[in-house]
Amino acid sequence: MIRFNNDYNRSAHPAVLQALADTAADSFGGYGGDVWCEKAAAAIKSHLDRPDAAVHFLVGGTQTNFTAIAAALRPYQGAICAHTGHIHAHETGAVEHTGHKLLTVPGRDGKLTAAQVAELGEGYRTSPVREHITQPKLVYISLPTEYGTVYSLAELTALRQVCDKYGMYLFVDGARLGYGLAATDATLADLARLADMFYIGGTKCGALFGEALVISNPALQTDFRSYIKQNGAMLAKGWLLGLQFAALFENGLYFDICRRAVEQAQRLKAAFVARGVPLYLDSPTNQQFVLLTAEQLSALEGKYTFEPDHPSEDGRMCVRFCTSWATTDEEIDALLADIARL
Amino acid sequence: MIRFNNDYNRSAHPAVLQALADTAADSFGGYGGDVWCEKAAAAIKSHLDRPDAAVHFLVGGTQTNFTAIAAALRPYQGAICAHTGHIHAHETGAVEHTGHKLLTVPGRDGKLTAAQVAELGEGYRTSPVREHITQPKLVYISLPTEYGTVYSLAELTALRQVCDKYGMYLFVDGARLGYGLAATDATLADLARLADMFYIGGTKCGALFGEALVISNPALQTDFRSYIKQNGAMLAKGWLLGLQFAALFENGLYFDICRRAVEQAQRLKAAFVARGVPLYLDSPTNQQFVLLTAEQLSALEGKYTFEPDHPSEDGRMCVRFCTSWATTDEEIDALLADIARL
Amino acid sequence: MIRFNNDYNRSAHPAVLQALADTAADSFGGYGGDVWCEKAAAAIKSHLDRPDAAVHFLVGGTQTNFTAIAAALRPYQGAICAHTGHIHAHETGAVEHTGHKLLTVPGRDGKLTAAQVAELGEGYRTSPVREHITQPKLVYISLPTEYGTVYSLAELTALRQVCDKYGMYLFVDGARLGYGLAATDATLADLARLADMFYIGGTKCGALFGEALVISNPALQTDFRSYIKQNGAMLAKGWLLGLQFAALFENGLYFDICRRAVEQAQRLKAAFVARGVPLYLDSPTNQQFVLLTAEQLSALEGKYTFEPDHPSEDGRMCVRFCTSWATTDEEIDALLADIARL
Amino acid sequence: MIRFNNDYNRSAHPAVLQALADTAADSFGGYGGDVWCEKAAAAIKSHLDRPDAAVHFLVGGTQTNFTAIAAALRPYQGAICAHTGHIHAHETGAVEHTGHKLLTVPGRDGKLTAAQVAELGEGYRTSPVREHITQPKLVYISLPTEYGTVYSLAELTALRQVCDKYGMYLFVDGARLGYGLAATDATLADLARLADMFYIGGTKCGALFGEALVISNPALQTDFRSYIKQNGAMLAKGWLLGLQFAALFENGLYFDICRRAVEQAQRLKAAFVARGVPLYLDSPTNQQFVLLTAEQLSALEGKYTFEPDHPSEDGRMCVRFCTSWATTDEEIDALLADIARL
Repeated sequence: MIRFNNDYNRSAHPAVLQALADTAADSFGGYGGDVWCEKAAAAIKSHLDRPDAAVHFLVGGTQTNFTAIAAALRPYQGAICAHTGHIHAHETGAVEHTGHKLLTVPGRDGKLTAAQVAELGEGYRTSPVREHITQPKLVYISLPTEYGTVYSLAELTALRQVCDKYGMYLFVDGARLGYGLAATDATLADLARLADMFYIGGTKCGALFGEALVISNPALQTDFRSYIKQNGAMLAKGWLLGLQFAALFENGLYFDICRRAVEQAQRLKAAFVARGVPLYLDSPTNQQFVLLTAEQLSALEGKYTFEPDHPSEDGRMCVRFCTSWATTDEEIDALLADIARL
Repeated sequence: MIRFNNDYNRSAHPAVLQALADTAADSFGGYGGDVWCEKAAAAIKSHLDRPDAAVHFLVGGTQTNFTAIAAALRPYQGAICAHTGHIHAHETGAVEHTGHKLLTVPGRDGKLTAAQVAELGEGYRTSPVREHITQPKLVYISLPTEYGTVYSLAELTALRQVCDKYGMYLFVDGARLGYGLAATDATLADLARLADMFYIGGTKCGALFGEALVISNPALQTDFRSYIKQNGAMLAKGWLLGLQFAALFENGLYFDICRRAVEQAQRLKAAFVARGVPLYLDSPTNQQFVLLTAEQLSALEGKYTFEPDHPSEDGRMCVRFCTSWATTDEEIDALLADIARL
Repeated sequence: MIRFNNDYNRSAHPAVLQALADTAADSFGGYGGDVWCEKAAAAIKSHLDRPDAAVHFLVGGTQTNFTAIAAALRPYQGAICAHTGHIHAHETGAVEHTGHKLLTVPGRDGKLTAAQVAELGEGYRTSPVREHITQPKLVYISLPTEYGTVYSLAELTALRQVCDKYGMYLFVDGARLGYGLAATDATLADLARLADMFYIGGTKCGALFGEALVISNPALQTDFRSYIKQNGAMLAKGWLLGLQFAALFENGLYFDICRRAVEQAQRLKAAFVARGVPLYLDSPTNQQFVLLTAEQLSALEGKYTFEPDHPSEDGRMCVRFCTSWATTDEEIDALLADIARL
Repeated sequence: MIRFNNDYNRSAHPAVLQALADTAADSFGGYGGDVWCEKAAAAIKSHLDRPDAAVHFLVGGTQTNFTAIAAALRPYQGAICAHTGHIHAHETGAVEHTGHKLLTVPGRDGKLTAAQVAELGEGYRTSPVREHITQPKLVYISLPTEYGTVYSLAELTALRQVCDKYGMYLFVDGARLGYGLAATDATLADLARLADMFYIGGTKCGALFGEALVISNPALQTDFRSYIKQNGAMLAKGWLLGLQFAALFENGLYFDICRRAVEQAQRLKAAFVARGVPLYLDSPTNQQFVLLTAEQLSALEGKYTFEPDHPSEDGRMCVRFCTSWATTDEEIDALLADIARL
């Protein structure tokens, strides 16, 4: 079985494993107060134009989402997200578990628009019974989204403007950020400038595990380590996170391996289109959603793993094929050949 | 100004005030451990066929909703409700504040259907990634709904059946229960039989304040007073609640005064219909939602208070007229005359 | 039975009941946006020198405590309190239920000292592992305390100074504030100047129910009504609270009736002392804690209610006698006579 | 610098690192549904006599503590712990953050006694105002404790009996369980029999990171994966946890490496005693607490890292020396020589 089911089914990039091996005999201070976390933070900040940004390393995505969101909000404030957003659909209500309501907005491609945010902001601003409703205070987006789509620099700028207008925070879930950056004209520096907080996903982008949270907004930096510890997100051996991100960000490895996975995914997409397989939507990143007939499904499912997403109205099944930093050209070539035979 | 804006703009029924006056010189034990709470619970239970039901008196509706819902759920479980449900739309995210996600279902008339509940139940039961999503564990309905509609006995029975099938609790918000009972074929006894918990609203139905929560399901009765106290819902002078409900339930006063308000509201509805004013929907209870033109609005708003609900797509405004136990025939007659002149 | 068991076993002062009767036929706006809440707030503020203070009316003490404390704190911050503090010992963990740790300090008389607070503040400030511990951010005291003792103006000033030094809030639980003010040299104006938030208890001091929360610190005033609503503490018929406090604060009734109860309690204390009954401590307010032998207990308990507090090491029982605004001179005289016969 | 400051300053045992290297090219299913988690669970369960036990792998200790404790408790219930307990003193109020009060008990050696638990249980059982206080429902102990002390089989059995008597759960924090098992007569099988839940620490005992939670009580097993996910404790690449515990538990490596560290620590203790350095207490495990003079401190602190615990009343400093699975005999020998020279 060749795995296209997700981007977290393999260990870590060899450079990351080598970094772990190289330091196996060394001792370090605990809880992220070590030289590797410093190096990694510096490597990440070299891509930003925000010397005042804080960088923290957490273990996983759900954890980073709820820790950061809850740290930013007061109890009567909530987060706006697409109804397909990961925090709404796949995290067992973790944000609500911290006490905060999600204000969901419909959409087909996983994205939020500035207009949708403005509508909620304006509704609250003008409500005569404001104290009876949740204040929309944080905008949660992911880059790329659950459907592989991305926000352009213009779209992110528009979201920032509406956030400024209504006093909201912009938070970017970057669990797959490397794949998103390969497909948008926005850069890490743009994210640091436009978002109050965003994170750089490691787990799905070459690391064993780990997410690097960048907090640009100084008001959200205060005592953030207390939130990390309280939420069980502070790894005792924090240097394990630092050295992984150091390995990924020195020499731009993170960008290279993610760009390659996106190129492979685009080859898949082209092959499906060439074969007449309809796309659910046009994803420019490493996740491809296509509509397969029952016959096509059975032709592929013996040899490849991929994920069902939802039954389509036309009787086909929408499924996801996912490449990753670990996908080989041989794996892609095999699948391309089988797609051509569908 | 004659008030039709809501059903909580007046003090309490004279019988309730008299009961307060009669006991002004007496001393009672605290926190609901008193003879009046006993009497009131007995009076309420005389309408039920559930000698094992527990009756608790709380102060207000939002408080009763989140206290009862949170007491019933485990942290990863959530409540199903209509997207117009009071807990979703008007309580500042109080249920989410207790850590629980609301699973909202669309609908125009404020009601949930058994089929909608079944779909969520089945989705969870068959999910291959159950631990990533919230378990739908409690069905929240209100009787009447925010739009004045009611559930029939058949509809409540269908909801009970789907709850049984999927292991869910049925919770009925009865903030306006008196008005609902006047318009449905379901009785208090039916509610006690079909719902795991429901409450009998006092605040909007003749009391100064107070809600009587009936817990039929023995599994949800355990240590419920601890939940009440922890959530600040235990009135130190609990007898004040007991004697109000005793006054309302001895001799059936509660039913009588609410029925009368519903009859008045039906006269309003008929007058609007006769005058050609479109109804937003056909409400059989004390809240009437009608679509007024700007001209009609200005004709009425100098003399009567009523509440804007939402702008209608046809350019009219949907507004609510609300009668209550305190509405007089003179007030209704005045409004009927003005409606006829619209 | 003559009740000295607590100060919430009777309805309300006749002036409060009269105010309720006088407005029984009137309609008011909901949720505290009414003329009576305005009047009551103005009457209270006439005693303060803080035109910028916000006054909110909530239903009960536990509710006011956790709503206000949780509104002031970030998730990793906690409240310092005496281990006998009401929030620690009698509220079913309501503050912890909002997610905040209590940092308790030992003491016999129910009071916190500035030195105890400073020790916790300094410990946190100098901790090398600050992110692993709770930040002490709010000082909770009650005036009077659970043991009837009070803070002098000098003690309150010292607490304010240590709060300023360590960036902490000072919160005063005034569930029995009227009785406390009769026994300390601090005034309402002093409290408004020295505390960030305090409340004026109504439930135990002449009202049917209700607490008036004064927020002096502007930073804690933002959107406070959202906290009230979210925590189920916003009475639909908010004017019921306003008119009670208006009745109590116009003409100084609140102060008068509480002073009288304190004078009665001091007569009780003198009688116990004269009879050789040891005091647990010397309380200057309406609660008196005395150590009774088994024989003395049985002599009194047939005719009076009073509360056991704890068994004393010398074999006696420490019990509480409590006067209130409703205690009559006849009740006191009867008890004095029986004490003399012990 | 030779590190004796803690037992988490080194990567992982070579066998663990080898297991990671061996699987670097393989693909696995996500979220713990993989062959390695199965193998590891089986290896652990081979030491227990509880075929019905559930084994889950989480990332860290604080996370495991609050996830498990919150899963076991209802909102009005709390956990009993020593005031030196890790959940009380070192986790930023993480348990309270989940809404639960800690009921702390004093003690010098970090241990709870069955009598202390019984006192709290009896106090609640007989309280006339039970709904006003937190129900003590879970007993939290750690093995070994923060001071390196252990519970004997007899002590654990006594705790189990008192838990049974009062309907409490027994939870054992085993962050350093390997070191504890080397010093007590209780076995893993005893823990599985006597505790409702306990965990086997990996982070401090040879793994890179990870804790294996064993849930013996079937009532606490329901939907536990939902709690793990909701609390951000479900590693996407769950097999990384499974293969580490498989490496540690196949062939008993876990027990061997921890026993060795304990033997090294006992040599340290003997050397201190021989040199006349007072012990703070007699620890049979890998943490040693000794009282050093300022002169002794400065003699050692240039060459070794160790942790200050607290200033002793006699003017000395109580410090902790900690060995681990990674401590070499050379490191111990060097320190022994320097102790002899103190």
